[in-house]
Amino acid sequence: MLLLIISVVLVVAFLAYMLVWHAKSKIKSDEIRELSKRIRGGARTFLFQEYKVIFIFIILITGVIFFANRLMALAFFLGSLASIIVGFVSMTIATATNGKTVEKLKSLDNAFKFAFYSGTAASLFSILIALLGVALLSFFIADKNVLLGFAFGASFIALFMRVGGGIFTKAADVSADLVGKVEKGIAEDSPENPAVIADQVGDNVGDVAGMGADLFESFVESIVAAIIIAATASVALDTFLPLRLATVAILSAFLTLAFVRKGKPRALLSKYLAASFIFALVLFIMITREFFVSVAAGLLAGLIIGLSTNYYTDPHKKPVKAIASAATKGASIDVLAGLTNGMISAVVPVFMVCLATYIAYTFSPHGLFGIALSAIGMLSMLGIVLAADYYGPIVDNAAGISEFCGMTKERAKADTLDEIGNTTAAIGKGFAIGSAALTALALLATYATIAGIKIANLLDIKAVIAMLIGAIMPFWFSGLAIGAVDKTAEHIIPEIRKQLKSKKEPDYNKVIAITTRYSLKQLVMPALIAVIMPFAVGFLLGKNALAAFIAASIVTAFVLAVFMANAGASMDNAKKYIETGKLGGKGSEAHKASVVGDTVGDPLKDTAGPSLNILIKIMAMASLLFATLINLV
Amino acid sequence: MLLLIISVVLVVAFLAYMLVWHAKSKIKSDEIRELSKRIRGGARTFLFQEYKVIFIFIILITGVIFFANRLMALAFFLGSLASIIVGFVSMTIATATNGKTVEKLKSLDNAFKFAFYSGTAASLFSILIALLGVALLSFFIADKNVLLGFAFGASFIALFMRVGGGIFTKAADVSADLVGKVEKGIAEDSPENPAVIADQVGDNVGDVAGMGADLFESFVESIVAAIIIAATASVALDTFLPLRLATVAILSAFLTLAFVRKGKPRALLSKYLAASFIFALVLFIMITREFFVSVAAGLLAGLIIGLSTNYYTDPHKKPVKAIASAATKGASIDVLAGLTNGMISAVVPVFMVCLATYIAYTFSPHGLFGIALSAIGMLSMLGIVLAADYYGPIVDNAAGISEFCGMTKERAKADTLDEIGNTTAAIGKGFAIGSAALTALALLATYATIAGIKIANLLDIKAVIAMLIGAIMPFWFSGLAIGAVDKTAEHIIPEIRKQLKSKKEPDYNKVIAITTRYSLKQLVMPALIAVIMPFAVGFLLGKNALAAFIAASIVTAFVLAVFMANAGASMDNAKKYIETGKLGGKGSEAHKASVVGDTVGDPLKDTAGPSLNILIKIMAMASLLFATLINLV
Repeated sequence: MLLLIISVVLVVAFLAYMLVWHAKSKIKSDEIRELSKRIRGGARTFLFQEYKVIFIFIILITGVIFFANRLMALAFFLGSLASIIVGFVSMTIATATNGKTVEKLKSLDNAFKFAFYSGTAASLFSILIALLGVALLSFFIADKNVLLGFAFGASFIALFMRVGGGIFTKAADVSADLVGKVEKGIAEDSPENPAVIADQVGDNVGDVAGMGADLFESFVESIVAAIIIAATASVALDTFLPLRLATVAILSAFLTLAFVRKGKPRALLSKYLAASFIFALVLFIMITREFFVSVAAGLLAGLIIGLSTNYYTDPHKKPVKAIASAATKGASIDVLAGLTNGMISAVVPVFMVCLATYIAYTFSPHGLFGIALSAIGMLSMLGIVLAADYYGPIVDNAAGISEFCGMTKERAKADTLDEIGNTTAAIGKGFAIGSAALTALALLATYATIAGIKIANLLDIKAVIAMLIGAIMPFWFSGLAIGAVDKTAEHIIPEIRKQLKSKKEPDYNKVIAITTRYSLKQLVMPALIAVIMPFAVGFLLGKNALAAFIAASIVTAFVLAVFMANAGASMDNAKKYIETGKLGGKGSEAHKASVVGDTVGDPLKDTAGPSLNILIKIMAMASLLFATLINLV
Repeated sequence: MLLLIISVVLVVAFLAYMLVWHAKSKIKSDEIRELSKRIRGGARTFLFQEYKVIFIFIILITGVIFFANRLMALAFFLGSLASIIVGFVSMTIATATNGKTVEKLKSLDNAFKFAFYSGTAASLFSILIALLGVALLSFFIADKNVLLGFAFGASFIALFMRVGGGIFTKAADVSADLVGKVEKGIAEDSPENPAVIADQVGDNVGDVAGMGADLFESFVESIVAAIIIAATASVALDTFLPLRLATVAILSAFLTLAFVRKGKPRALLSKYLAASFIFALVLFIMITREFFVSVAAGLLAGLIIGLSTNYYTDPHKKPVKAIASAATKGASIDVLAGLTNGMISAVVPVFMVCLATYIAYTFSPHGLFGIALSAIGMLSMLGIVLAADYYGPIVDNAAGISEFCGMTKERAKADTLDEIGNTTAAIGKGFAIGSAALTALALLATYATIAGIKIANLLDIKAVIAMLIGAIMPFWFSGLAIGAVDKTAEHIIPEIRKQLKSKKEPDYNKVIAITTRYSLKQLVMPALIAVIMPFAVGFLLGKNALAAFIAASIVTAFVLAVFMANAGASMDNAKKYIETGKLGGKGSEAHKASVVGDTVGDPLKDTAGPSLNILIKIMAMASLLFATLINLV
């Protein structure tokens, strides 16, 4: 309780501090201000269009749940609302920061701190809302299962933001490039291209709204899973421990920013991560002895997954250099090297999650509770990791704005800032996937508890069938998600062509509106199979088979997600490596080949891969709803 | 027993008939004879080099098993030997047929029949040896578990032939193209290229030795699994029923060839498949009433998987046309469309296996026995399917030989024959994957029986961990296999360059020797993880967790294999579709893009995808050995 109050006070104080800093940083250049406003406007267009559809669904789902359990309906409504608020505030902060960052670029250090601290503000706000939401509900409501409603709300919004957003960002990107760069020979980020703002908005949609909602969901669900396991356990367990441990995500970030202040941007970022890890560890041991090993195992596994992700995707490391050198042999060899690298890169994360799960289970007084807590442990660096994630699109947009305004010197500096963020972004993605897997496993344990399953025999014929179906889900879902990018782009491209032909002022917002509309439309199929299949399996094959279904889909999706994310990121960075002048540099045959690889990898890493985080969590959540439902009947 | 004798007589008669036909078909052209001899010689070089390594391992493994169970050691030795003989004979038939087929090309119908009947001879010989091997062992040895040794022998050779062969065929192909076509501008299949024979040999290695060993293994293991389940069941089950049902694979092929004789090649091939399906069904109902539904379910599922594979990979159907039209937008869009198509294409096969398993289990007096019999049911079209598979490299080689000898008219006709085989090859691949999955599921059931596991709780922490590890295996293995192609090619390419520079007669055999040596070397890592991991999981996590490990790896590998096989095949056919003059035809930008897609897809469909069939079966076999071992201790 005390820790929670401290967290609230600290976050509010920090937000106030950042508000003042922002207020003092007025944009002087009219052009930058105008452009920044456009991006913010575009982001709002996207959000409000999504909200319209979302709200209809929220009303519907809340209504349905209302008949089963009124409190849970309320919790669902609040969970959705909380995630929406978090998304809106984060997007506002990010789009309010990009233009100001450009003007601060005279000093790289200053610009870095401004962008990163703004990201931290958004990050801490997100975490605080998650914490407060769960805390308030669990203080006032005795039946802890009600918390599932809140988690399902978070899950539901994440589906729209992460999957819909993933389709949006790639469709905008692909269309802008295809018509602008390829057909018309317009430079990237040039104001002539009517899709340029959509592209900039897309960066925010993917990495701020999408990633934010994803990690918000993981955070909420890992806490909720732990609380429910504690509440339903046959032995006495502290149901407030998960909340206390979760405050570490805020506190460790604070301690980090308070104590680590000096260094060049790149070094500073690594120091932040290291400090955040150490502070989390220290705080954990202050909060719990009994479950320290469990949370520490999760935390350490998260760090190693992050580092391993970095190893396989960093342009300065062997794997990416190997892909770049494969590019000299042609586009297909580049793609194959990227795919292979992605496959191999999944080995370490899988073994890390295995190890964390095993240790968390074995070395704690209550095994399942230990696993749930290890998921919270993994997320305790979230304050810094999410901040670094939000930082990405801010400086990426800053680079775009400088280009748009023809500020070449600033552009170069912004690119440096952007590159600094890439490593951390890779680590962040590793975290997102690892924590999704661990959270989903915790949810599986929760499902078993609620459905009253002690033994789910995988040799049962129904379980085997359910596992087969569970394994196809991630592939099916990914196929639909990648296909959606192409189908959405088909509607954007004619609009861009038409606008370019008309010679009028480009109507940026129209492109954004079209992109949002069709990405929403393309979201329908994947969303449907994600929500319906668990119920179908549950009703047709029974609750034990449903556990097998969830388990198989978690393990397959986890591996597939790491594969796609790292394959995409490593091909992207192989291209960037060549662009630094290596192996022939820009314009060489190797560069052209690496561009093909990058374009193949883009929807893998930005659309399909991250979508799988959502898939496994939402399927696990749907099965929990199923369990609650059959308990009622 | 009677059925078996009939089978033997029929096959021997057919082989004699084909021997006469072959003897009458002397090659007249010296050039063709010489070339055909070279390919045969090259194939032998590959085989003998593999045998050298294989024999050392056989001696070692036989020795190890000998201490545990003498009869099983004998069975292992015989199983390996049987598979080796089958591979050698099939390769001999295939390489003796290609040159003769070229000379028969005056009449397309005649050439088709000669090539297809030769393929059938090889196919029936393979099936007969499998049947006789299992039959003899089970007649003479009371302990049916000994049959596992025979199956493991088949598994072991398949690993070398399918995975090693898969690496060989793609490494040779890539190297020949890269140096020949790309660097030096030499036409494909030109005698100047020192890798041209290696490339031709590679076709045989992949589709004759590899596919043959793969399906030989599936056939043996599905029968063995059924026999063991019958022998260990608590109720009385007929242990000879699996053998009787397995003869259908031979008998239905005979009836098909006896009754279906008229039609143009393409129509004839479809008629063969349809007739073989109907005859199998008729024979099944004559052999069994009780288990008819189970075998029929397997048979029907196999057919539908084959047809669905055809739908997703046929150049005349929508999916491949969509990929071809994606190629007009660039190489990356082509690749993405191919990958997406592969992902979606896995949905139907998975549901078919689910359905077959469910029906086979539910509508039979003994569930597990039903599942094992459904695997045999799926393989009962093997006579025709495997024949069509062997037909592929024969006519492909015929095309290569005509090109090599500058016979343009024959080349065009051979290409027609080749194209006819493509559809059936796709169906064959679907069969191979589907039957591998079903066989592996039957082996899983056998494992549970032998290890005495009634319940393997997937909610157990060790089972969860085992499932995670099981899911990473197919990705890890695939990554290593695809990487192996590149690493092997690295050693071939300098040799080709050196030979081309020296201006001497090309030394074709040296290229083959190098390709074999390095593909064997690259086989080590994937083979090791496939064999060691089941034991590691079994010893570290226990026998229940091992069941979870196997189950998770089967479902993941099945989906991944279909994805890779169909992604590769559809990109290949999109290229071929464009080459027929569509969307700009050969040389257009779309064609170039589709070539990139084809090259990306090649190792997916010819190396990694098929290797997964082997992975799941060999891991299931290793776990069976583990179970036998712990029973002894």
